[in-house]
Amino acid sequence: MTTNAYPLLQKVNAPSDLRTLSRSELKALSEELRAYVLDSVSKTGGHLSSNLGTVELTVALHYVFDTPHDRVVWDVGHQTYPHKILTGRRDRMSTLRQLGGISGFPLRSESEYDTFGTAHSSTSISAALGMAMAAKRKGEDRRAIAVIGDGAMTAGMAFEAMNNAGVLDGNLLVILNDNDMSISPPVGALNRYLAQLMSGQFYAAARNVGKNVLKQVPPLLELAKRLEQHAKGMVVPATMFENFGFNYIGPIDGHDLDSLIPTLENIRSLDGPQFLHVVTKKGHGYKLAEADPVTYHGPGKFDPKVGIVKSGAPAKPTFTQIFGQWLCDMAAQDERLVGITPAMREGSGMVEFEKRFPDRYYDVGIAEQHAVTFAAGMACEGVKPVVAIYSTFLQRAYDQMIHDVALQNLPMVFALDRAGLVGADGATHAGAYDIAFVRCIPNMSMACPADERECRQLLTTAYEQDHPVCVRYPRGAGVGVEPLPELSALPFGKGEVRRHSAAPRQTEPGTAPRIAILAFGTLLYPALEAGQSLDATVANMRWAKPLDEALVRELAQGHDVLVTVEEGCIPGGAGAAVSEALAAAGITLPVLHLGLPDRFIEHGDPAKLLALQGLDAAGIERAIRQRFLQTQA
Amino acid sequence: MTTNAYPLLQKVNAPSDLRTLSRSELKALSEELRAYVLDSVSKTGGHLSSNLGTVELTVALHYVFDTPHDRVVWDVGHQTYPHKILTGRRDRMSTLRQLGGISGFPLRSESEYDTFGTAHSSTSISAALGMAMAAKRKGEDRRAIAVIGDGAMTAGMAFEAMNNAGVLDGNLLVILNDNDMSISPPVGALNRYLAQLMSGQFYAAARNVGKNVLKQVPPLLELAKRLEQHAKGMVVPATMFENFGFNYIGPIDGHDLDSLIPTLENIRSLDGPQFLHVVTKKGHGYKLAEADPVTYHGPGKFDPKVGIVKSGAPAKPTFTQIFGQWLCDMAAQDERLVGITPAMREGSGMVEFEKRFPDRYYDVGIAEQHAVTFAAGMACEGVKPVVAIYSTFLQRAYDQMIHDVALQNLPMVFALDRAGLVGADGATHAGAYDIAFVRCIPNMSMACPADERECRQLLTTAYEQDHPVCVRYPRGAGVGVEPLPELSALPFGKGEVRRHSAAPRQTEPGTAPRIAILAFGTLLYPALEAGQSLDATVANMRWAKPLDEALVRELAQGHDVLVTVEEGCIPGGAGAAVSEALAAAGITLPVLHLGLPDRFIEHGDPAKLLALQGLDAAGIERAIRQRFLQTQA
Repeated sequence: MTTNAYPLLQKVNAPSDLRTLSRSELKALSEELRAYVLDSVSKTGGHLSSNLGTVELTVALHYVFDTPHDRVVWDVGHQTYPHKILTGRRDRMSTLRQLGGISGFPLRSESEYDTFGTAHSSTSISAALGMAMAAKRKGEDRRAIAVIGDGAMTAGMAFEAMNNAGVLDGNLLVILNDNDMSISPPVGALNRYLAQLMSGQFYAAARNVGKNVLKQVPPLLELAKRLEQHAKGMVVPATMFENFGFNYIGPIDGHDLDSLIPTLENIRSLDGPQFLHVVTKKGHGYKLAEADPVTYHGPGKFDPKVGIVKSGAPAKPTFTQIFGQWLCDMAAQDERLVGITPAMREGSGMVEFEKRFPDRYYDVGIAEQHAVTFAAGMACEGVKPVVAIYSTFLQRAYDQMIHDVALQNLPMVFALDRAGLVGADGATHAGAYDIAFVRCIPNMSMACPADERECRQLLTTAYEQDHPVCVRYPRGAGVGVEPLPELSALPFGKGEVRRHSAAPRQTEPGTAPRIAILAFGTLLYPALEAGQSLDATVANMRWAKPLDEALVRELAQGHDVLVTVEEGCIPGGAGAAVSEALAAAGITLPVLHLGLPDRFIEHGDPAKLLALQGLDAAGIERAIRQRFLQTQA
Repeated sequence: MTTNAYPLLQKVNAPSDLRTLSRSELKALSEELRAYVLDSVSKTGGHLSSNLGTVELTVALHYVFDTPHDRVVWDVGHQTYPHKILTGRRDRMSTLRQLGGISGFPLRSESEYDTFGTAHSSTSISAALGMAMAAKRKGEDRRAIAVIGDGAMTAGMAFEAMNNAGVLDGNLLVILNDNDMSISPPVGALNRYLAQLMSGQFYAAARNVGKNVLKQVPPLLELAKRLEQHAKGMVVPATMFENFGFNYIGPIDGHDLDSLIPTLENIRSLDGPQFLHVVTKKGHGYKLAEADPVTYHGPGKFDPKVGIVKSGAPAKPTFTQIFGQWLCDMAAQDERLVGITPAMREGSGMVEFEKRFPDRYYDVGIAEQHAVTFAAGMACEGVKPVVAIYSTFLQRAYDQMIHDVALQNLPMVFALDRAGLVGADGATHAGAYDIAFVRCIPNMSMACPADERECRQLLTTAYEQDHPVCVRYPRGAGVGVEPLPELSALPFGKGEVRRHSAAPRQTEPGTAPRIAILAFGTLLYPALEAGQSLDATVANMRWAKPLDEALVRELAQGHDVLVTVEEGCIPGGAGAAVSEALAAAGITLPVLHLGLPDRFIEHGDPAKLLALQGLDAAGIERAIRQRFLQTQA
């Protein structure tokens, strides 16, 4: 950080430093902060648009509230780079989202200013309400503030929290950061309603209140509205948020410190649930991001002067792209197909599908629960839903998968992207548990393609079933096995042997055992490498459920030891399924389960993280040698 | 069914029969139907109050709509007895909720009139919207109707569906059955808002609209409201449901066919999302139930003339009561404790706690997601939350448990009632998966008390930890081991051997093996019986996670075969944990996993159901003999 470029920012090592600045200095600080965010992210990659949009709000919050004594909970939390920079982590921004570096999300272990770890959407109101009620119980004079985007407000959890907060007396402030844009463009009635709030004549006038009449509390708008209600003898309040028992203030301009600071100062002294509607612009202050906030949502490294340059050479296709292409191809062939996403059009690879089949595309908002049961309703009517959902977000729709889909055995495909470790997003986004939590549910199936070609084939297999099937695939690209152009299927519930060991059976204890490696999913390829080196048999199991029990028995009978490999948690995972099958078949032989350990794994480069868990070829080989070949080592 | 008592009802074998009746006959039919419901439930037990409240609504829906071509989805579904009686299942009501009999909830496999299986709350709008959009896609002229109570409306999932429905053009009708009463009395801002809607002067007049001006569509109220808005140049709509893009009609009297039928007839011809607010009274027409709908929510058998008579002799305390007592005792000892329930005060045994500690009791509404993250927020502040939640409903808060609690390793107790089979409520309510889906999550623990005394002790153990712990216990009473009066704990993560086999080790193949049974939870007692009969060692494992691995190794080393027993699913369950531990320790011996099979299990008497799964003493013994002692049989 050069001193010249950031004269004010370099003096702010904690929010207390910021509280000594004048209003005009705060404005200058905001400009420096915005430039610093842009500079940092362009060097490390990370979330950009959302952070450019929250610069002034962050400055105002830390200026007005006594953080960390007052608790600020940032919903989703990918907009907290300005917050991190102002709370002592300025110089660590170069380590953002890298192994050993700071997280891209708030993390309680990272800073006392990170009051609650977030990443999945829509948790902030619940958490902040808990903190507000705890303060009440403990007799502490403390404010709890949830900052939540308009996209996150569409998730049911936010409404559950609003419904509860409205009847409690906690000193809770909910700040709706209305930027008219979750990752995908906004959908749903709530967004339309917010737009109405802003365009209505009544509110059009009121929008200037914040700017011009700063010290009036309750704001004039509130007063006028109440007077009007009294005059009419009506008790029906005017905004949805008041219906929930909140005192509604806004909308105000979230990039104008002269609106933000006095409004927040006034709110600070109000008791009970407060709701402040702030309007910001994603990418604010960086023209390229303002014009295309989706592209600049989470870029890699780029030159801020030039912007993001799309690479000319076609990269290896990601699994996301393989899915997107399959979805279009299958939709073209079968008009019963519909595609459903909970606000993840880009991330799930459905941009092209929406373009080509707009009336068969449903973006239901950040609403995984609804997405799954909505699909179940369609499946009852003979429509064939494909629900694209990240592995980690399927956790949000777990009950719906069990109670509405599996119990009724409805034909449906769950396309689970981001299965396994996800890299820079870290533990909150890891798709580590899906095999275990799906496998225990009757009627559910789980396919684990090993590469791109299989991914396409297993999606087709899943689609052809008359019961619900999950297909899980990791973030990024695979080994690069080109998919077949046609829509061909693989046998349901069947694996295959990809390499046969030439080694003999173990003759007596101490001699080398004949080894079979059972790989589930993309770790087949490192398993094959390890198998080559160890002369082990390697099976591509393909299905965690139903398990190919015949193949398991055959491998057990022909080998001395089995090794299971998966990019998923060991407890209850595919390896456990193998052990269960062996127990049920009355077969005893040594089994080594390789997979993700029973702890949360931090952010970092995915390949490096996998290697650290011993899930690269070298690690698999090492683990097998240690366990079974020590005498030969 | 005597012909004299039900002259009209006996002629209605399908809704088409009902459509031939006059209005006055429909009213008489409703009276017969109400009497029939009361008579049936008093003989079989089941849900009463809610069914007495939906008699007229059911008659009106089947009269006005072309069921089953039009789709009615009943939220929760315990209010569908009138529906079942009118749709061909009148004579099967005597088999309700019994093994082989009809379900207490809608079931697709039971009737074409049961369009969507429900039981967990708040799924109906999503499912009906899916059906409406499927009809649109297929060009079918079909209506989809969701009937949802005011309690169920507080769950986030319902809002997610409303948010989506409001911007789609499906022919969806949402009927809010506003009875001011979920199982526990209503809580939350939405309930207050609904009361406001009904008490506001503007609406007070409008409430007569349904009665007096029946054929006006849109209702006068709507028209008046729109005119008023135009006059003021405002676009802000008047009710929350309109904010969501619905056409709001109501409130109307849900017990008055002269309101219901014409209103529904009018709505039937309207396109797009419609919202009808109907007011009913739980227990309507049966004075005892009207006066005490909570007691009459789900009674056992009783004499309708006398009402429910509370048994004089104290029955064996249920696990629910053991928990309720523990909660009060621990709260008295530690003022940091708070108790949280998602609308299950009675079911979770928290009535006494609320009375004694009203300011430490939080009923957050039907909102499991919020309940858990709200608790997490409190835990961050040093408050010690105990979240009481049925095993099956924890599925709704799975992501929150992972992302907000486990990842941050927050100290918190999850008290999981209704773990295992639940009997009459059937597959939808079975707490069969919790061990598997909790065990795969890092930082989580899971205690499985074997009896009442241990339940109290393990709750204390859980409470004393500095990380999150689940304690699971079944519906009903245990074997009757009296709890100790003090708040004593058991060692964390440790089991015990309860019976030592006197049998020798196996000497050669074909001779009898020395057997160890590892029991998790209340099945310890049938396991002990089986162990007695087989002269097996029996361990009370107490913890599914962390598993007492030292004990597992010790048992494996001292015995020839292991048998695991749990009232939970086999895939990924506690037995799988044992197999994983053995694999990790490099120990091979035959293991038999006994538990719930990998399929959904229907309703019926719990003891009979357990026996059918082979999980009584005789079944456990039989399974062990079949697997390990065939040569000795």
